Amino acid sequence: MMIAELISTGSELLLGQVVNTNAQYISARLAELGINLFFQTTVGDNRVRMEKAISTALARADIVITTGGLGPTLGDITKEVSSGVFGRKLTLHEESLKRIQAMFAYRGVEMTENNIRQAMIPEGAIVLPNNRGTAPGVVMEEGHKVIINLPGPPYEMQGMFEDAVVPYLTAKYGLKQVIYSRVLRCFGLGESSLEEEIKDLLKQQSNPTIALLAREREIHIRLTALADDVAQAHSMLGSLEEVIRTRIGQHIFATDDDTLAKVVGDLLVERKYKIACAESCTGGMIAAMFTDVPGSSAYFVQGAVTYTNEAKINLLKVKENTIRQHGAVSEQTAREMAEGVRSLAGTDVGLSVTGIAGPGGATEEKPVGLVYIGVAMPDATSVYKYVFSGDRSSVRLYAAKTALDLLRRNLLRTGT
Amino acid sequence: MMIAELISTGSELLLGQVVNTNAQYISARLAELGINLFFQTTVGDNRVRMEKAISTALARADIVITTGGLGPTLGDITKEVSSGVFGRKLTLHEESLKRIQAMFAYRGVEMTENNIRQAMIPEGAIVLPNNRGTAPGVVMEEGHKVIINLPGPPYEMQGMFEDAVVPYLTAKYGLKQVIYSRVLRCFGLGESSLEEEIKDLLKQQSNPTIALLAREREIHIRLTALADDVAQAHSMLGSLEEVIRTRIGQHIFATDDDTLAKVVGDLLVERKYKIACAESCTGGMIAAMFTDVPGSSAYFVQGAVTYTNEAKINLLKVKENTIRQHGAVSEQTAREMAEGVRSLAGTDVGLSVTGIAGPGGATEEKPVGLVYIGVAMPDATSVYKYVFSGDRSSVRLYAAKTALDLLRRNLLRTGT
Repeated sequence: MMIAELISTGSELLLGQVVNTNAQYISARLAELGINLFFQTTVGDNRVRMEKAISTALARADIVITTGGLGPTLGDITKEVSSGVFGRKLTLHEESLKRIQAMFAYRGVEMTENNIRQAMIPEGAIVLPNNRGTAPGVVMEEGHKVIINLPGPPYEMQGMFEDAVVPYLTAKYGLKQVIYSRVLRCFGLGESSLEEEIKDLLKQQSNPTIALLAREREIHIRLTALADDVAQAHSMLGSLEEVIRTRIGQHIFATDDDTLAKVVGDLLVERKYKIACAESCTGGMIAAMFTDVPGSSAYFVQGAVTYTNEAKINLLKVKENTIRQHGAVSEQTAREMAEGVRSLAGTDVGLSVTGIAGPGGATEEKPVGLVYIGVAMPDATSVYKYVFSGDRSSVRLYAAKTALDLLRRNLLRTGT
Repeated sequence: MMIAELISTGSELLLGQVVNTNAQYISARLAELGINLFFQTTVGDNRVRMEKAISTALARADIVITTGGLGPTLGDITKEVSSGVFGRKLTLHEESLKRIQAMFAYRGVEMTENNIRQAMIPEGAIVLPNNRGTAPGVVMEEGHKVIINLPGPPYEMQGMFEDAVVPYLTAKYGLKQVIYSRVLRCFGLGESSLEEEIKDLLKQQSNPTIALLAREREIHIRLTALADDVAQAHSMLGSLEEVIRTRIGQHIFATDDDTLAKVVGDLLVERKYKIACAESCTGGMIAAMFTDVPGSSAYFVQGAVTYTNEAKINLLKVKENTIRQHGAVSEQTAREMAEGVRSLAGTDVGLSVTGIAGPGGATEEKPVGLVYIGVAMPDATSVYKYVFSGDRSSVRLYAAKTALDLLRRNLLRTGT
């Protein structure tokens, strides 16, 4: 197996002004390609220290990948330092210059003298075109060692990595074994309960491997298989997924990238249901999640953010007496909100949330985190009560996702 | 000035399973303390490589800070390796053991044998109590060199850094100079235009320094002063801020941490105005931003997510004829939506957004990114037209923030 090493450059990283997401992205992709990575180093825009970092990395790895420092300013020195380590000079690369000039012309912006620096390429290097920005990337080979310079902006770096670096590495090292991952996205049970359910699988894992990751109140089970080809990888992942699904299938809402809102949207489309929602403490988050999905206008009819009692009463027709007797945060109010918004919008389904996100608003009987969620289905309305922990943002996020998940479970119950 | 170096440990970082936010946090805090940082290294839970990384760092820095690897499992070796570099042994620290036992008892969870490992401390080390978890941290001094081991979970690490590491470093190195930062948050002009406006200041900067950072469609101007005391730092920052404000004051919506929604909320409270909003393409994002602010129920009355034409007509009383003649994405519809939601909710101000977020929905005359924003103030209604670039999420985010910023400018216009 080949060994790579990663060098992130840029004083903004050493000053803590930005989070280094490039390191994570490249590391994850290298793991998937079956390339080992033992060190990541971050160094500033300093010639001596950057040279030291690159030399050190070259001494212990086959492939050194740098990010950052390909910009037009005098502080951008990564290409210069990298080529210096291999004893090469930079020369003007006409094709890159034309590409940069064309990009400026397209944007209608005047190109500055500085930008010519970006077209300076080490002698004998392979140029990696940048489809998302001006700075080209570079691959330099010297004996068995390779240096790859990539741009710093994540969007440009990721494009270049996928379009140019992956094909290069695959061809150069004849990467035959493939690494494939599948993520089972779970909601509705805690990390420790989930761990308990699949403890034996976690213990005896080798290939595929299993990792549990908590992300934004979801738990992601990441299965990774190392196989001879794609078909074998898929079959290995499929078998393991099946075992896991027999144990906790109802908590798995999606595979890989789908969001809760996307999954719920698909279920609504299948059932030809339209939906409206009424939110108090989540204040529009559920509507925003629904409408973040392209094409959601096919089923998402209307959202109401009814923050005040008046809005609940006037718009949703919640009874004044209900609020007076039980309070705005109560099972009864949640029920009337869900049914009210459904009838207001004339939809099949109504979803409501009312709760106390904090920090203010709590009483002795009603603590911060108390949330009622109403799901008005065509056949019946259910109301669920929760007490979520955490700060305001946390309670709101948990409440919004729980509402979507409850709707998902109700939709599955009704069949297509 | 002292030199520190940072070593993040953990195979999950090398596999790209998590983003290294600890590196950013510690780097930013060290910069504020006036301690230099030239290298960050990430290494896995491997004895030989971790030892190498720590030794290398010790050779070129005064202070080596590690994160991660203080857990109870056999893979957690950071304390062992660190103490080995200084030729020390680990011994049981009774006080830490008691603390860990008490924490388990409090949680009602049985403590495992493994957890005793967390109470093993290098001989002669200073123990840093962990107020947010079980693993204590460690400071080891050897001559002029210092190794500090901190836990990996960000919440625990941050607590320990603030409670124990900052006081330790301040006392040990008699840090007298203080570093203070102030962030001027701007919206409504591009990074290059902003750069043009303060080009001379950027060029001649030394102390305070000026950095421009693009964040979530905002531009943050970060001023950082190195001074003898807090008063001097504030005065230096204040003078520079004044110069910048005379040039681009209208684009600066907040200092330091306030969000656009918070600033707009404060202006509404000052003017005793209440607000309601009607969203189409932003689908609840503006309402969610408003209601993310604690206490927003004082002025945010109601949000309407009117995704369909029917909802716009029935709920907001947009004229059917307006939509037929001009389309749902038009100046006229935006105007009627803003005025409609204001009258529906009985508020002083109405805010509306209608647009095409993409990827579908575009026509020849109406491209993806076309957005109309309506601001219905007590005296007059204004409608603004934009064509935002980027994908669906990007258009939505830009549209939501632009709406808040336009409202901010309209509120400032009306005075208190």
